[in-house]
Amino acid sequence: MSKAIHSATAAPKEPQAVTARRSRGWVPAMTSDTYKLYYWPMLQGRGEFVRLALEEGGAAYVDVARLPEDKGGGIEALLAFLGAQEQPPPFAPPVLTLGDLVVAQTANILLLLGRRLHLAPEDEAGELACHQLQLTLADLVSEAHDTHHPVASGLYYEDQKAEAKTRAKDFTARRMPKFLSYFERTLEHNSASAGAYLVGSDRSVADLSLFQVLEGLAYAFPRGFEQTTGDCPRLLALRRRIAERPRVAAYLASSRRLPFNEDGIFRRYPELDIG
Amino acid sequence: MSKAIHSATAAPKEPQAVTARRSRGWVPAMTSDTYKLYYWPMLQGRGEFVRLALEEGGAAYVDVARLPEDKGGGIEALLAFLGAQEQPPPFAPPVLTLGDLVVAQTANILLLLGRRLHLAPEDEAGELACHQLQLTLADLVSEAHDTHHPVASGLYYEDQKAEAKTRAKDFTARRMPKFLSYFERTLEHNSASAGAYLVGSDRSVADLSLFQVLEGLAYAFPRGFEQTTGDCPRLLALRRRIAERPRVAAYLASSRRLPFNEDGIFRRYPELDIG
Repeated sequence: MSKAIHSATAAPKEPQAVTARRSRGWVPAMTSDTYKLYYWPMLQGRGEFVRLALEEGGAAYVDVARLPEDKGGGIEALLAFLGAQEQPPPFAPPVLTLGDLVVAQTANILLLLGRRLHLAPEDEAGELACHQLQLTLADLVSEAHDTHHPVASGLYYEDQKAEAKTRAKDFTARRMPKFLSYFERTLEHNSASAGAYLVGSDRSVADLSLFQVLEGLAYAFPRGFEQTTGDCPRLLALRRRIAERPRVAAYLASSRRLPFNEDGIFRRYPELDIG
Repeated sequence: MSKAIHSATAAPKEPQAVTARRSRGWVPAMTSDTYKLYYWPMLQGRGEFVRLALEEGGAAYVDVARLPEDKGGGIEALLAFLGAQEQPPPFAPPVLTLGDLVVAQTANILLLLGRRLHLAPEDEAGELACHQLQLTLADLVSEAHDTHHPVASGLYYEDQKAEAKTRAKDFTARRMPKFLSYFERTLEHNSASAGAYLVGSDRSVADLSLFQVLEGLAYAFPRGFEQTTGDCPRLLALRRRIAERPRVAAYLASSRRLPFNEDGIFRRYPELDIG
């Protein structure tokens, strides 16, 4: 199997709710069952939240920019694709397509995948609760990113190292604990899964994204993460629970999973961790 | 009419699509048609995006924290409400309730209001396109906020003034123009409304939010805004078009519209504007 083209061993079964909605005309007919992900090929970044949902959902997908250049991959092809979209244009990758549907903004893509891949509650209140958590995770991801780029995302880390130290200190001392204790509390209150998942009775896109955030924070701030999560047994259990799901475990062990690196959101700069 | 309780002159008519979805059981039956907004009472902030949608949509709503304290208003009552929510808990205001439904995260609230108040395309692809724009606006709002709080949201502006100047310079020179030219281009490409609105043929929650962002940027960075929007005739036309809609105009002229101030997202600190 190629590194970039992944098909689940069995064709994914379409959840009943999707079939039901499509028959009502709300879900457009699909011209293709293969998802195409357009994202930077050399880093996890925000694309990784989409990859995890596609993998856990058993979707057939192509990680387009990771294909060889003669098969449509590479950064130039990615930029050409992004520039050609108009209704509306995407502001930035990731972008996911499914037939004629072109969707950008990570949380928005996950709203779609939650429905299509049976990775979100099916009732409207549950879907909104799941999306609320997804957007709170997006806020945490932005703040984690800004620890190394507090002044300007277009400048090098080396040019804003002093400000990064100040911001990272606030992040590890105040913001990361605030967010993580919030998600710990959310797990504690979710009686529908006895605290195993964030919302409803089963794992959702929000749980997969929380897993990725925990992995990222543990990579970027190993000491701060260990200290903060000393009080968060449910978060640590969720991290293990997601990692052990068969499809996630297979993905993490494959070459499709890029390693963390210092081009992504979560970067290991020891000077930004607690002492 | 009280400052905090606003009822549209005519009871809002429920869009047909909502009725259709409810009869399928996807939209829970409403126990009340009155929306309750929970947000800081002394500033526009992120609550203002919700207020604008409620007003343009002709919804009956209560801006709870702005009620007198003996009627359930005030900050202490707001904090008590926030602390009592569990499924899932909100991370921060704004929170909107409708009957049993409790929804947090601004963009998520607007996803709901787009459906209920007929302020978004009704097909799934259109709703996702609208939400994509909403999330891109949320990114711009965060970056506008961080110009005055680049180091720590919990510290005073005066304690991060030097870093704020550096960050604001990058914002006015690079990020604000990038975002605004993106939205100008989005209007230009939207043939369904001949460039009048961001998505589809009519105004949506995204247009109302773009209006608010333009108002805010013009307030916070008058010189930078004027320079940037010299190339953005469609944005300026949209700003006027929204301001002149009868319900929006009535709202802006009322005491329900709080003025911009230096506690909100958009703050007028002349030293952060271009020279």
